[in-house]
Amino acid sequence: MHEFHTQRRVEFADTDMARIVHFARFFSFMEAAEHEFLRSLLGEGQQVHFEHEGHEIGWPRVATSCEYRSPAKLGDILDIRVVVRRKGTKSLTWGFDISTEGRAVATGQITCICCRIGGPKLEAVPIPAFLADQLEEAPSRSN
Amino acid sequence: MHEFHTQRRVEFADTDMARIVHFARFFSFMEAAEHEFLRSLLGEGQQVHFEHEGHEIGWPRVATSCEYRSPAKLGDILDIRVVVRRKGTKSLTWGFDISTEGRAVATGQITCICCRIGGPKLEAVPIPAFLADQLEEAPSRSN
Amino acid sequence: MHEFHTQRRVEFADTDMARIVHFARFFSFMEAAEHEFLRSLLGEGQQVHFEHEGHEIGWPRVATSCEYRSPAKLGDILDIRVVVRRKGTKSLTWGFDISTEGRAVATGQITCICCRIGGPKLEAVPIPAFLADQLEEAPSRSN
Amino acid sequence: MHEFHTQRRVEFADTDMARIVHFARFFSFMEAAEHEFLRSLLGEGQQVHFEHEGHEIGWPRVATSCEYRSPAKLGDILDIRVVVRRKGTKSLTWGFDISTEGRAVATGQITCICCRIGGPKLEAVPIPAFLADQLEEAPSRSN
Repeated sequence: MHEFHTQRRVEFADTDMARIVHFARFFSFMEAAEHEFLRSLLGEGQQVHFEHEGHEIGWPRVATSCEYRSPAKLGDILDIRVVVRRKGTKSLTWGFDISTEGRAVATGQITCICCRIGGPKLEAVPIPAFLADQLEEAPSRSN
Repeated sequence: MHEFHTQRRVEFADTDMARIVHFARFFSFMEAAEHEFLRSLLGEGQQVHFEHEGHEIGWPRVATSCEYRSPAKLGDILDIRVVVRRKGTKSLTWGFDISTEGRAVATGQITCICCRIGGPKLEAVPIPAFLADQLEEAPSRSN
Repeated sequence: MHEFHTQRRVEFADTDMARIVHFARFFSFMEAAEHEFLRSLLGEGQQVHFEHEGHEIGWPRVATSCEYRSPAKLGDILDIRVVVRRKGTKSLTWGFDISTEGRAVATGQITCICCRIGGPKLEAVPIPAFLADQLEEAPSRSN
Repeated sequence: MHEFHTQRRVEFADTDMARIVHFARFFSFMEAAEHEFLRSLLGEGQQVHFEHEGHEIGWPRVATSCEYRSPAKLGDILDIRVVVRRKGTKSLTWGFDISTEGRAVATGQITCICCRIGGPKLEAVPIPAFLADQLEEAPSRSN
């Protein structure tokens, strides 16, 4: 699987005094879509921070970016497309396209590392096979 | 109509380092549910900040409160019930019950004033009749 | 000690499309002021979630409220006064007055419980004596 | 002037359930530092959204990015350095270095366009001369 779609509606608390979605909120929108994608692969009731071989797995971010094409406003329904841009042994790069009613709003990227968390230090570990096996890189033309 | 139901899933950005939903986020959850209720009455495409008789109508808050019953965590699906607690000529008090899987999470209240906004000062005005007519106070036993 | 003062400047991300501080943000402002008060009592380098007798102490909220007097805008410097309204064995109620240039903006309250956290369940415990001894209830006229 | 320094303390509401600052918050930290830089040039009482030749000037973002070096935690005092990376006629690119106690936490970038706002559409305009004259690109070695 290399692609996932979801939607969300812009809420009042997402806006700022320019009367549009605050630019930093898009990163939380992207993260929520990424997590929905992961949850669809993990199975019912499983969370994105899950237990694997006795350790809690988390996904600290190493790099993020966003380009803003046009503003989003209160009540807009955002269509969010998530693709796997790059699948490493211990890292993933997600790509995002956000649009509303066919108009491009933003494109972004999140690179994260699969880590054991909860201990004194984060420790990078290979993405658990059951998850890695379900993820494949999107063909480059769809990037 | 005196009651409305909706749901939302707890997202990663809603949590804090106590690993539960940050207490201030519940106010944004309540607001989003209030707005969904209003939108269901305003008709398709209408926003909560709508145009009425040539003026933009908004709902500044005058008082809010929340009691916390039990924590909500990442991935929890919150059931949110909105009721009209008090309907004044120019003000509304909304009540909220938030639960997950039948367990009470929080109850809260938001009192707001119907105002003309966009001018130099906010001006309280009667709730537009087409909206006021659709809202009725919840029977007190359901408060 | 029963009173503490601090200041903060309203930032762009605090505002919403009504061009004023979003009402839910005041709860985070109150919390930050409460934590500054606690930090002033805990000593340098100590955090609000601190270690005590081998357990991490945290302050889950049980009730919060806020009344809004007038709007705050981008760049406003908020004067925040924190008082101890009620000191129980295991609980604290903080009161807050927020103003800018002498104009009242908001008053609020946060009640929290002193808890051992980090275990499977939160456990209410007495406020550590070294901290309780430094806190006294504000005289009621200053409430 | 091509450089500005400021500090802020990590607050509880900045953290997430991984017990570190949520990655999206760094964008609001960067924005607040950018605005402090601008305010230092605009003169007392002037806001970042200011009036110029009868129009309100704002700074919509076109691109943002952040690389995360190490986590920031509750109570950390963040040192934030802002530099002018690129000064165009109508656009600015800000660079940010965030560290705590000498340890690199994050580096980021925000590109924004100087716009007349408030009308039905955003309109890109030249950066007002009184402001542009005070900003110079940082020498590349300090990028």
